Amino acid sequence: MNKRVEIFRTQIGQDKWLFDYPLMDWMNAKVLEVDEGTVKMQFTVEKYMLNPIGILHGGIAAAMLDELMGAAGFTIGRPTGYATINMNIDYLNSAKAGEKVIGEGVIIRAGKNIMHAEAKLFNEENKLLSKASSNLIATSVPIPF
Amino acid sequence: MNKRVEIFRTQIGQDKWLFDYPLMDWMNAKVLEVDEGTVKMQFTVEKYMLNPIGILHGGIAAAMLDELMGAAGFTIGRPTGYATINMNIDYLNSAKAGEKVIGEGVIIRAGKNIMHAEAKLFNEENKLLSKASSNLIATSVPIPF
Amino acid sequence: MNKRVEIFRTQIGQDKWLFDYPLMDWMNAKVLEVDEGTVKMQFTVEKYMLNPIGILHGGIAAAMLDELMGAAGFTIGRPTGYATINMNIDYLNSAKAGEKVIGEGVIIRAGKNIMHAEAKLFNEENKLLSKASSNLIATSVPIPF
Amino acid sequence: MNKRVEIFRTQIGQDKWLFDYPLMDWMNAKVLEVDEGTVKMQFTVEKYMLNPIGILHGGIAAAMLDELMGAAGFTIGRPTGYATINMNIDYLNSAKAGEKVIGEGVIIRAGKNIMHAEAKLFNEENKLLSKASSNLIATSVPIPF
Repeated sequence: MNKRVEIFRTQIGQDKWLFDYPLMDWMNAKVLEVDEGTVKMQFTVEKYMLNPIGILHGGIAAAMLDELMGAAGFTIGRPTGYATINMNIDYLNSAKAGEKVIGEGVIIRAGKNIMHAEAKLFNEENKLLSKASSNLIATSVPIPF
Repeated sequence: MNKRVEIFRTQIGQDKWLFDYPLMDWMNAKVLEVDEGTVKMQFTVEKYMLNPIGILHGGIAAAMLDELMGAAGFTIGRPTGYATINMNIDYLNSAKAGEKVIGEGVIIRAGKNIMHAEAKLFNEENKLLSKASSNLIATSVPIPF
Repeated sequence: MNKRVEIFRTQIGQDKWLFDYPLMDWMNAKVLEVDEGTVKMQFTVEKYMLNPIGILHGGIAAAMLDELMGAAGFTIGRPTGYATINMNIDYLNSAKAGEKVIGEGVIIRAGKNIMHAEAKLFNEENKLLSKASSNLIATSVPIPF
Repeated sequence: MNKRVEIFRTQIGQDKWLFDYPLMDWMNAKVLEVDEGTVKMQFTVEKYMLNPIGILHGGIAAAMLDELMGAAGFTIGRPTGYATINMNIDYLNSAKAGEKVIGEGVIIRAGKNIMHAEAKLFNEENKLLSKASSNLIATSVPIPF
């Protein structure tokens, strides 16, 4: 188990994010599982995340998916940070206020320069809500732990 | 000018959204221009929209882009709402807290079933931050105005 | 087993396509397995499919992936044909002339209007070469069998 | 005008590709215009490029789009080659055998590591058939001219 996985696992089950990350608190993000290349989180949909039709805004679903892929990339343990080049999202089903959304991010390939990641969101009945993939590129910004 | 454009234009320059849409207020959304098939908005990046590196979270950029495309679709004036099938985003440059982001959504093709939309985000120096495209499908849910 | 699967299975192991489909012959397409919602094929890379660097042209990989997803959609057994709305491809590894490429197309969700499909290409060492996803929409063109 | 543009322009109006590139001949590719960051080509749709419905196969449209973006990247004049990370395609209209397809590839941003490219295909009535975008990454393979 690398150091990053160890650090990230201290977040499991916490109601509030352990370092200053307001967006995660706003999305009610809770870390469920962390492994090298895989992160599982839960989010709770709030009224303020909805679009005018009353379902989870596609952009907030995107924020959950993006976060899951970035977090999965973090667990690989590379010395520098990665930047997202692109993200493709497919929307299959919708979520309403009050629903819990369970998401998983996975690194499919951790190349030297490019990481390829996938993420999925499910509702509590295990219905696939949306899926995404991203390519990330190594930056020169060191991660200090 | 269709009725939808007329309605949407009442939002131009308003600091707060005229109907209940908390996410737009949270993103400091301000409508700048509305035409049939085109919507221009401005957002202001807040600290709570950042990722751990201190730049605008890719998911919140996605929310801006998604909103711009949905809004542009609304202005076409179809009797029923449209649902987003997919969204592809490319990230080219980043934005920081305090920056204003100017975005434009455009309907490229308004087919009977499928609309194809594009959106772009720029910073105040007119630098392209990110670009997106989406396909939307007609639903059976009527829009009552 | 629906009728379409039955028909498609007559193609398994054939060196030449049973109905007139020159592109499949050009790509040395061989059907390996057919089930409702899943099709597995093999292609052999020829010199005329290469780009100037001497590896399989990204567009021909796209043709293989597109065909796999369309074929998987066909096996669902819907009365009318489906048209591809969009295709997203990620390129992870390359293939050379003479290599066999094994591909699988899968229908992830067969909605009333929209089907969502995925496909992957592997080389003979089971290395992932490329992956794709597509959304397809029902047309009004009947399939006569 | 850089050297690459100069070299590529010798291909303008030629019926056959000047160096050994069978796929371009197979697609009846003809270079129309070349500038730094932009390439315009024409293709002629043949029966062997069609899908079973009798329209241009989505994968062959992808090959045209991919080629246009790669060619546009070549004209930037970088010392090493670029590899395609991903390609997203949207299909808006179809083409039939005998039709001429006019395509344009453009480099939107030529970053140090990543190039972002777009391409579009039109028919002779200037109707948009399909559009694509790609991210390309610098390789270490030198281009010897």
